[in-house]
Amino acid sequence: MAVLTSRSTDFPRWYQDVLAKAELADNGPVRGTMVIRPYGYAIWERMQAEVDSRIKAAGAVNAYFPLFIPESYLRREAEHVEGFSPELAVVTIGGGKELEEPVVVRPTSETVIGEYLAKWTQSYRDLPLLLNQWANVVRWELRPRLFLRSSEFLWQEGHTAHADEADAAAYARRIALEVYRDFMTQVLAVPVFVGVKTRRERFAGATNTMTCEGMMGDGKALQMATSHELGQNFARAFDIDFLGADGARHLAWTTSWGCSTRMVGGLIMAHGDDNGLRVPPRLAPTQVVVLPVRDEETVVAKARQIAAALTDAGLRVQVDARPGLSFGRRVTDAEIKGIPVRVEVGPRDLAAGNVTLVRRDTSEKVPVPLAEVATRVPVLLGEVQADLYAEALALRESRTTDVATVAEAARAAQAGFARIPWRLVGEEGEAELAEEALTVRCIQTPDGGIPEAGSDADDLVCLIARSY
Amino acid sequence: MAVLTSRSTDFPRWYQDVLAKAELADNGPVRGTMVIRPYGYAIWERMQAEVDSRIKAAGAVNAYFPLFIPESYLRREAEHVEGFSPELAVVTIGGGKELEEPVVVRPTSETVIGEYLAKWTQSYRDLPLLLNQWANVVRWELRPRLFLRSSEFLWQEGHTAHADEADAAAYARRIALEVYRDFMTQVLAVPVFVGVKTRRERFAGATNTMTCEGMMGDGKALQMATSHELGQNFARAFDIDFLGADGARHLAWTTSWGCSTRMVGGLIMAHGDDNGLRVPPRLAPTQVVVLPVRDEETVVAKARQIAAALTDAGLRVQVDARPGLSFGRRVTDAEIKGIPVRVEVGPRDLAAGNVTLVRRDTSEKVPVPLAEVATRVPVLLGEVQADLYAEALALRESRTTDVATVAEAARAAQAGFARIPWRLVGEEGEAELAEEALTVRCIQTPDGGIPEAGSDADDLVCLIARSY
Ligand SMILES: [Zn+2]
Ligand SMILES: [Zn+2]
Repeated sequence: MAVLTSRSTDFPRWYQDVLAKAELADNGPVRGTMVIRPYGYAIWERMQAEVDSRIKAAGAVNAYFPLFIPESYLRREAEHVEGFSPELAVVTIGGGKELEEPVVVRPTSETVIGEYLAKWTQSYRDLPLLLNQWANVVRWELRPRLFLRSSEFLWQEGHTAHADEADAAAYARRIALEVYRDFMTQVLAVPVFVGVKTRRERFAGATNTMTCEGMMGDGKALQMATSHELGQNFARAFDIDFLGADGARHLAWTTSWGCSTRMVGGLIMAHGDDNGLRVPPRLAPTQVVVLPVRDEETVVAKARQIAAALTDAGLRVQVDARPGLSFGRRVTDAEIKGIPVRVEVGPRDLAAGNVTLVRRDTSEKVPVPLAEVATRVPVLLGEVQADLYAEALALRESRTTDVATVAEAARAAQAGFARIPWRLVGEEGEAELAEEALTVRCIQTPDGGIPEAGSDADDLVCLIARSY
Repeated sequence: MAVLTSRSTDFPRWYQDVLAKAELADNGPVRGTMVIRPYGYAIWERMQAEVDSRIKAAGAVNAYFPLFIPESYLRREAEHVEGFSPELAVVTIGGGKELEEPVVVRPTSETVIGEYLAKWTQSYRDLPLLLNQWANVVRWELRPRLFLRSSEFLWQEGHTAHADEADAAAYARRIALEVYRDFMTQVLAVPVFVGVKTRRERFAGATNTMTCEGMMGDGKALQMATSHELGQNFARAFDIDFLGADGARHLAWTTSWGCSTRMVGGLIMAHGDDNGLRVPPRLAPTQVVVLPVRDEETVVAKARQIAAALTDAGLRVQVDARPGLSFGRRVTDAEIKGIPVRVEVGPRDLAAGNVTLVRRDTSEKVPVPLAEVATRVPVLLGEVQADLYAEALALRESRTTDVATVAEAARAAQAGFARIPWRLVGEEGEAELAEEALTVRCIQTPDGGIPEAGSDADDLVCLIARSY
């Protein structure tokens, strides 16, 4: 089944092979852009639905702000413009004419949303104001990589305004934990280290950045979502102020937070194996594929009947009875696409009143009486979900090493995460590590929690890794 | 209740007032762009869900193609580039550098999707290839109007490739009828004339354009969705060919079709009245608002209990018990936002075991025993849905006039639609009408059906109107 390069031979090439063979994405015609193919987009739609429902549960509402931002807006917040200037795409011609003021294609929407938060924030009664948008953003990429780093990507970006610092901090933390960590662990089945970024790695304009860091199959880290406290930087730049209960005017405190199509890259690299993708059942657009072994009418009819029963049981099901494609080819295709469970329907099995359930994650095969399929498959899907998470967690634990010096961290981080007290690293250690392309992924409390913003407690630990 | 300008005084200003007071949208900072506020976006999300499920039922799958298109792509189809050139936004700077080839921000994606349809279309077995995408597009607007004409808008665009002309034609027609007309009539409650565009009004590069034309409250037409046969124009330009069952290579036949945030404008203008929006129940993000008449604990508790029961009955429900806002203010707000049914919960009613149901469309009030609320409200919502459609249809019928000359058509079209045999108009008549800002909205068969593409049957009729 040498359809894909093996992961151990060449992980980046394996990644490219999966993108192509699972029909997830392709390069766009303009350098760095991406075509998300139907199967890749179906996965993204499922991610969107799961993240969106968590965002709504956290009280935020969706809106939409323009793609085009006046260049002058970005300049209002010093660190923000500095952070994004090298990545901007600029429209200079509109409607056949040179524009008087060039407009920037949004790299993120802090500035334009800041303008409207200012308009809509009059009194403390308007706060907190909790907005989210699903949109495309553009950051010009010189070394693009599909889903991981592309000049255009899809994401959600939340932007909120609060009456005081504590409320803003609590909300940014709530999003990191109840939206992102919950989605990653419960749906994507990827364990994540949640902590704060160092000053060096912080979002441009933020006073504190929280992050979810996952470990990929090659031991590298992937930043999977971030949640930022912006302090009063954007409130000052855009005059987001309000009349307090005390009758005086106050500047608001804002946050922003996002996750993107990059998570599709994370899915591939966290769970994929040498046979392709492995999609966790709670995420999978197709949870079960029913495969008639032979192109015979009674077998195909039985396959459709089983699929109908599974659909009635609330599962996302497809029948793959494509004529002209051998059973072997259809099995390979289901494996490459990572469909969690196959139901194989063969004439011999049927004669014995059975079908065969096959788990994608372990390749385990179980004959099951026809009458039990609709009750056994949901149980099996639950097991696959739990086992994929357990496997990813075991990998992470086996590749996370506690070390005591920056030099040891640099060595250990070649294979995974190095964990070390933050006071032994500091900004100097960070600069040394950067020379070897290593970064502090996040700082945590000793028990793996998120430290308070700006905490310099002695017992903080940090995780160091290579990263995407 | 003079919150809004009345429709008869100044329809365009009334429209602007509704946008502002119902908190639907606002102008963006770059001329012609639009901020869709949470309530406007919630309406759009419901439109998306309803249209998306119909598109999927028609067999198309979602994907995503890049925002940026090489300028050279547009040039490959002569009419297409000519049609869009005056409206293009062009990126000339990326990542801090002048680009070697400027890139265009997509005004529509025929060209870039054409490139991939060519790649993915190898054999007749790959056809039909049925794609759709939800995306933002940019067409520089000199006279912008929120939701109706903006430099950036949100839409879906379907793009399909077929093995022969008949299949392409049938699919484009199926989309016009089963996706668009069905959504407009069944959900949006707007009757539409479905027909073909004249050569003059056709999409740039299409061989045939089908359209759904609705009548707004001021008698003007709004083009609410279109479905195009592109013949082999784009297949030729992008080399979308395939190996036929006959062993020879053939050019494919393509279609494209779309509907946009413009439909939100249509919703406002088709159903709105002097008190604000009226949202049909099947579309409404909030179908029922429960209003405690007084800010008393027992009344508010009862309101929440009723809301819970209605939610359990499968409805989309909100309680508006905002403190500091009088009952009157909350009623006005629910009216402006067009929430189909209010449940007013007052202490006197409660004492008699009743609440009051109020229809937004007719202002009719009915006292209903508490125990019957959960069964009566769904029935009432069904009546509101049907009555809004009937009212829009009655308006359209009263303002559609059969005429026999172009001069008569010009007069009748000042107040609504003029219907006249197409052979009495022709391209000359069309040119004359254009001088008075009137257009042929569509051509139909005598029974209101869609003519075959290119038909010049003698009995075709056309509809002439002012339009947005
Ligand atoms: Zn202010
Ligand atoms: Zn070809």
